[in-house]
Amino acid sequence: MVAYASMKVHFEDYIRAALKEDITSEDITTNAIVSPEKQGCVQLICKQTGVIAGLDIFRHVFELLDPQARFDTEYKDGDFLQNGTMVGIVYGNVRALLTGERTALNFLQRMSGIASYTNECVQVMKLYKTQLLDTRKTTPNLRIFEKYAVKVGGGNNHRYNLSDGILIKDNHIGAAGGIAEAVRLAKEYAPFVRKIEVEAETLEMVDEALQAGADIIMLDNMDNETLKKAVDRIGSKAQTECSGNVTKERLKELCEIGVDYISSGALTHSAPILDFSLKNLKSLN
Amino acid sequence: MVAYASMKVHFEDYIRAALKEDITSEDITTNAIVSPEKQGCVQLICKQTGVIAGLDIFRHVFELLDPQARFDTEYKDGDFLQNGTMVGIVYGNVRALLTGERTALNFLQRMSGIASYTNECVQVMKLYKTQLLDTRKTTPNLRIFEKYAVKVGGGNNHRYNLSDGILIKDNHIGAAGGIAEAVRLAKEYAPFVRKIEVEAETLEMVDEALQAGADIIMLDNMDNETLKKAVDRIGSKAQTECSGNVTKERLKELCEIGVDYISSGALTHSAPILDFSLKNLKSLN
Amino acid sequence: MVAYASMKVHFEDYIRAALKEDITSEDITTNAIVSPEKQGCVQLICKQTGVIAGLDIFRHVFELLDPQARFDTEYKDGDFLQNGTMVGIVYGNVRALLTGERTALNFLQRMSGIASYTNECVQVMKLYKTQLLDTRKTTPNLRIFEKYAVKVGGGNNHRYNLSDGILIKDNHIGAAGGIAEAVRLAKEYAPFVRKIEVEAETLEMVDEALQAGADIIMLDNMDNETLKKAVDRIGSKAQTECSGNVTKERLKELCEIGVDYISSGALTHSAPILDFSLKNLKSLN
Amino acid sequence: MVAYASMKVHFEDYIRAALKEDITSEDITTNAIVSPEKQGCVQLICKQTGVIAGLDIFRHVFELLDPQARFDTEYKDGDFLQNGTMVGIVYGNVRALLTGERTALNFLQRMSGIASYTNECVQVMKLYKTQLLDTRKTTPNLRIFEKYAVKVGGGNNHRYNLSDGILIKDNHIGAAGGIAEAVRLAKEYAPFVRKIEVEAETLEMVDEALQAGADIIMLDNMDNETLKKAVDRIGSKAQTECSGNVTKERLKELCEIGVDYISSGALTHSAPILDFSLKNLKSLN
Amino acid sequence: MVAYASMKVHFEDYIRAALKEDITSEDITTNAIVSPEKQGCVQLICKQTGVIAGLDIFRHVFELLDPQARFDTEYKDGDFLQNGTMVGIVYGNVRALLTGERTALNFLQRMSGIASYTNECVQVMKLYKTQLLDTRKTTPNLRIFEKYAVKVGGGNNHRYNLSDGILIKDNHIGAAGGIAEAVRLAKEYAPFVRKIEVEAETLEMVDEALQAGADIIMLDNMDNETLKKAVDRIGSKAQTECSGNVTKERLKELCEIGVDYISSGALTHSAPILDFSLKNLKSLN
Amino acid sequence: MVAYASMKVHFEDYIRAALKEDITSEDITTNAIVSPEKQGCVQLICKQTGVIAGLDIFRHVFELLDPQARFDTEYKDGDFLQNGTMVGIVYGNVRALLTGERTALNFLQRMSGIASYTNECVQVMKLYKTQLLDTRKTTPNLRIFEKYAVKVGGGNNHRYNLSDGILIKDNHIGAAGGIAEAVRLAKEYAPFVRKIEVEAETLEMVDEALQAGADIIMLDNMDNETLKKAVDRIGSKAQTECSGNVTKERLKELCEIGVDYISSGALTHSAPILDFSLKNLKSLN
Repeated sequence: MVAYASMKVHFEDYIRAALKEDITSEDITTNAIVSPEKQGCVQLICKQTGVIAGLDIFRHVFELLDPQARFDTEYKDGDFLQNGTMVGIVYGNVRALLTGERTALNFLQRMSGIASYTNECVQVMKLYKTQLLDTRKTTPNLRIFEKYAVKVGGGNNHRYNLSDGILIKDNHIGAAGGIAEAVRLAKEYAPFVRKIEVEAETLEMVDEALQAGADIIMLDNMDNETLKKAVDRIGSKAQTECSGNVTKERLKELCEIGVDYISSGALTHSAPILDFSLKNLKSLN
Repeated sequence: MVAYASMKVHFEDYIRAALKEDITSEDITTNAIVSPEKQGCVQLICKQTGVIAGLDIFRHVFELLDPQARFDTEYKDGDFLQNGTMVGIVYGNVRALLTGERTALNFLQRMSGIASYTNECVQVMKLYKTQLLDTRKTTPNLRIFEKYAVKVGGGNNHRYNLSDGILIKDNHIGAAGGIAEAVRLAKEYAPFVRKIEVEAETLEMVDEALQAGADIIMLDNMDNETLKKAVDRIGSKAQTECSGNVTKERLKELCEIGVDYISSGALTHSAPILDFSLKNLKSLN
Repeated sequence: MVAYASMKVHFEDYIRAALKEDITSEDITTNAIVSPEKQGCVQLICKQTGVIAGLDIFRHVFELLDPQARFDTEYKDGDFLQNGTMVGIVYGNVRALLTGERTALNFLQRMSGIASYTNECVQVMKLYKTQLLDTRKTTPNLRIFEKYAVKVGGGNNHRYNLSDGILIKDNHIGAAGGIAEAVRLAKEYAPFVRKIEVEAETLEMVDEALQAGADIIMLDNMDNETLKKAVDRIGSKAQTECSGNVTKERLKELCEIGVDYISSGALTHSAPILDFSLKNLKSLN
Repeated sequence: MVAYASMKVHFEDYIRAALKEDITSEDITTNAIVSPEKQGCVQLICKQTGVIAGLDIFRHVFELLDPQARFDTEYKDGDFLQNGTMVGIVYGNVRALLTGERTALNFLQRMSGIASYTNECVQVMKLYKTQLLDTRKTTPNLRIFEKYAVKVGGGNNHRYNLSDGILIKDNHIGAAGGIAEAVRLAKEYAPFVRKIEVEAETLEMVDEALQAGADIIMLDNMDNETLKKAVDRIGSKAQTECSGNVTKERLKELCEIGVDYISSGALTHSAPILDFSLKNLKSLN
Repeated sequence: MVAYASMKVHFEDYIRAALKEDITSEDITTNAIVSPEKQGCVQLICKQTGVIAGLDIFRHVFELLDPQARFDTEYKDGDFLQNGTMVGIVYGNVRALLTGERTALNFLQRMSGIASYTNECVQVMKLYKTQLLDTRKTTPNLRIFEKYAVKVGGGNNHRYNLSDGILIKDNHIGAAGGIAEAVRLAKEYAPFVRKIEVEAETLEMVDEALQAGADIIMLDNMDNETLKKAVDRIGSKAQTECSGNVTKERLKELCEIGVDYISSGALTHSAPILDFSLKNLKSLN
Repeated sequence: MVAYASMKVHFEDYIRAALKEDITSEDITTNAIVSPEKQGCVQLICKQTGVIAGLDIFRHVFELLDPQARFDTEYKDGDFLQNGTMVGIVYGNVRALLTGERTALNFLQRMSGIASYTNECVQVMKLYKTQLLDTRKTTPNLRIFEKYAVKVGGGNNHRYNLSDGILIKDNHIGAAGGIAEAVRLAKEYAPFVRKIEVEAETLEMVDEALQAGADIIMLDNMDNETLKKAVDRIGSKAQTECSGNVTKERLKELCEIGVDYISSGALTHSAPILDFSLKNLKSLN
């Protein structure tokens, strides 16, 4: 069972869709060669060093193909694995094991890749109070998996989508005719449980955002010096988020400056996968 | 309109699903600030150098939100763009422009990232007859976009999924009790229009595959020397595909050896995005 | 299991959709605070007096979130409950109990509200042969639940939708050029298993409908006197349905007049809910 | 076109589903009697006095059945209509007009009913700073329409669902072992853009919530005296929401006490419909 | 546009699904060879003699692939065509023409096959009052098309499905403990607009059904003599339907006996197709 | 469980959709008469002689309505059954047995009809090396079942759909300006695992196809003499497929000529069903 009861409501649809993407009619190679009653098991091997994420998704792929399938593992999402680790064993109908292999690995590899990359960044930041955030620059139709993986890797989530957070950007400010008016409109319109975040590119905009009562100010594409001034000026009057041109190398400097949050699209849009494979299939009947 | 009539059948569903992923109820920031009748335009800017892919998908996101939206561009998929290029202009309802921005860019960036990375590899190989192939190591529920992007970048597609190609791997061979038997079963079972591909890890397996009448032999994880011997031994009796540990650096050596095809999962599972943004929103009423 | 095997085919989709409506990514409050392995139970309390309907739907919400969940109750749909009744106990994963609470109650409250309101009307009519009917004025995408609740409350169902019943209204009559022609066309076109119902607003129309061979005549918006005449004139030549301006107060008068059926849109479009809540959550591990 | 580009993504699915609910195969009465080429128009009449909501949804039902259909009206959502108002005219294929009638009205009546009831409450509160809120006690699979209607009626929206707001209730507090721990866990787990709301039933709980740093305190089921004390004690340290036993009669007293927000489930779960009908169908060819 | 506004709600989903069934990723042959801008036209030729049905479905396949596509024809559903007739011309994007060809023909051929076979039977019966009926023995997920085709061919439709008609069969009678009780239960439970049909295999059962007040009596698998007796005994007290072993040869005898309806599963489950093809593709740019 | 793990991914959706097609709200006859707790069993009887196909689909219909349902049989897909055979017994909730009956039989009858007709053809060809193929002339949205049934009957499958096979027809050749160019474009564009099939109507076209390097040549609508010449000319340079005007009578002649494959659309578009019924329902509680 997928651990998060409430995530399951969405997970299942995506997993099923991924299986259909990989199967138009049937797995012809497997069905040609393996008899339908054959039972067996196969090992999940980690082939790089990093943080694993998505074990429940991996398991669920096989359960969808064979309700009797089971995945035994001593590991859990968030564990740091060495290259070569035997992560666990999948038992079930051999056709299901072979047919589900690629889909299960595609989920696991991508989620673990994001968790691992996130974790590398978090390690750099660990002596600081600054938190690492994801963005909405996720893979289309994979956000629920990717934002989960960021959290598994030690990062935090920014708003989930356009409906559950207010982020007033330059275009919104232009359309409203100024930050003050934009914030006023947002407070009037949006559910009151939403915090108001405003994007600021200059110190003047920072001041305006503060005055308008922004809860969070996103300091966008500022150089370190300006950023420092902005953070000082804001103090505890709002939370600060730094975004734009955030490389792993620059993380430490940004933490030193003292922003509350650093957001990075790369966590989800450019993390390479963490490699896994299924090995040593054995027949059990 | 999406250029490929037949792809449209699937494209639309995925784009719509991605919009729903980004919108639970509505875009609260935009709806708070921008009036519903406001018309405008915004520029698509390329912020890295590479090959663009996905222009029709990008356009279609806006058309779904505003049937009157239109995207004017002089570029087409496969064009090589310099950092800073103004790719085109989207015209339409401003709410639609702002609401669709992230979803449209998420598709375009990922597809262009894959096309660009593929193209870098293809450039390395361009003096050789060897062709570059993708794999099934694609992002779940994004395969149709990713395999298309590989082709835009100059690569070739391997089988699309488990139903339309036969690839007999070690586990299949084990289950069948040998390559000869596995190939025989596959020929008997699968639609006759399918070519038979067999994975071989040793020269002995290569010999067996040849004898069994394989159409394609996948030379898996071989060192250059073994690979050379395998290619020589196979000659024109079958097509050869090299896979496993394929780095950009090693591509040239593999081409020199003379394999027909090199397949690389990294094209789709680890290519970083190509960055784009929407800039200079202007009001037109 | 939902008691009605054939209803289950549709119930499940709607329940799942309702859960997705209430969960975009996950239940963040619950997942933050409750550990995933926690088992527990919670009581379902009835907070008003009325007829309960929807126990299987209520149960199924939890089963979808936790296949091991179970709901123990001594009551069944149609039972009349006093305010304060402890209806039953839900056992299961605590996350599932908390996450499913609102969705489960939203179904149960609305269905019980309709059953209760229907039952109040039915009580007024119980000494008469006249039957109470619902209409197609149901909540969009909730008809299957609402028509079921009407039946639980003691009412009867009119046609389910536009495809399974013929009801010739004034606009149809106008288009056909008269009742006789409209009925003739309907008999010719529709499956022969359908009864023909005609709406009549005057006694002349009643006569025409009788002559045309209507199986049912809907007496629409008539005053009591006209209604009485219509019922007398029709006798046993057709069934009679009275509709329009049907208040609870007027029900008795209508029954006295002797119509066969009274239809009321208010049963489904304006019944207030019957209040329930989940209380006394206890941990069981 | 539906005015809100971003809402359209969900509206359309629900409207289409509602049409399918009302049509299994076809509208047999209409298809029997009305020829397929017949064009016409019909008037939308308001039959009660109240606030209209859902005009775009109403229009879209007909557009889905006949892409050439059009709805002309001088009114817009939020307008206060007198009983008998001719709201507008729908033009189109007569079959589409007759087939879409009930579905279009079912949406419009329910949404307008909620807007009207909300507006009555808002009128009572209009001299006070206190705002009226909806809840998650909405009709399953109708939330997007109902929350929109609340806003049209002058109310405000609380969180949309379980994923976009934190609301720590008694059961969560029990599971965490106290308010302080519950708030700490929520802050650690949830996206940082979320405000933290805590339900308090006693003054002691109010104190604990304040100390834990709650952004909003929901004062649940308190009598007026306790409520007054709670509001005084909280001052500007958090926002206050009053919930439970909120009748229209009590609204004024609650406003006098000075809570920031009053939430009422009845807005969506028990508002009766506002009655509309389609009248005077005319043929235009 | 599909002629029947209300059928369109379902037609579109099925047609789209059929296109997806025929396209996993794209039409590789067509996309390899035909350039995306190519416009053209192609002729629809009837290759057998019979009744055509499904012209709107045929057209809509192309409209889904190319919104600008158009189909010009002088024929309409129900026309009797000679082998060799040029039915019409499809204009549009050539890729769309080639890609949609098979799906469009598969619908048209099957629907026309059913209409033609139905019509052959109807011709045999044309001097009698007896009507020909279809059954629920339709192809899974094609009922809406097949029942429509039966009507086009001159047949009548029996109930559409399990929800909109009552048909009490031997198993139901057994479960209820007799016809009288079964009919009583059905009248009590089912919407009052339903007619009650009872299956009778003997004259005793016919008597019981009459006494119980059945609206329709299905005379199942009776020889001609028994059938005659049954029809005489029933007279005008109920409608009669004859079913079982209905061959085209026996139709006339059954008509002579004077049953009201003859139902035949073969109309939908065993009618061969009527052959059509697309010919003479011409380029128009 | 459906035997083919990978087919299950699609089977389930179609079966569920078929149940929804047969149930709008509920099975009113069954629910009126049979109590919800009633358990029972019913026999599946084969009423014609032929090859059975679809036993897992048949079983799964009942499992979807009643997860505890079970189907005991000694037969398996491909068995040749005599008229009158008692194929097996379904056990389960009686409502589920009655409600699922028609849907389960509709699948089984059609699939067995195709398997039986295919098998009759295969019997004619059994002394020859020539193989029998299906086509894409399948029933919309039933292809996965029909192609499976062809295989059960002893036939082979041609390509599944437009995406997984290349078949260059006259229109493609015209558009490309000749066979050589068409084949070159296809080889360049399509995944390299695809074989290239070219349709040839004359001996000249056969020569061109051979020269262009076609893997398979479809000999379309040739008379026996031309066919013989074509087969001789091709020899082992390509595989040969004969199509067009293939009647059961002509099969033997075509085999004698020595083509490798004969394809027949009639296998799927015009095979009559094989009749089955459910009989002798017994109550078990």
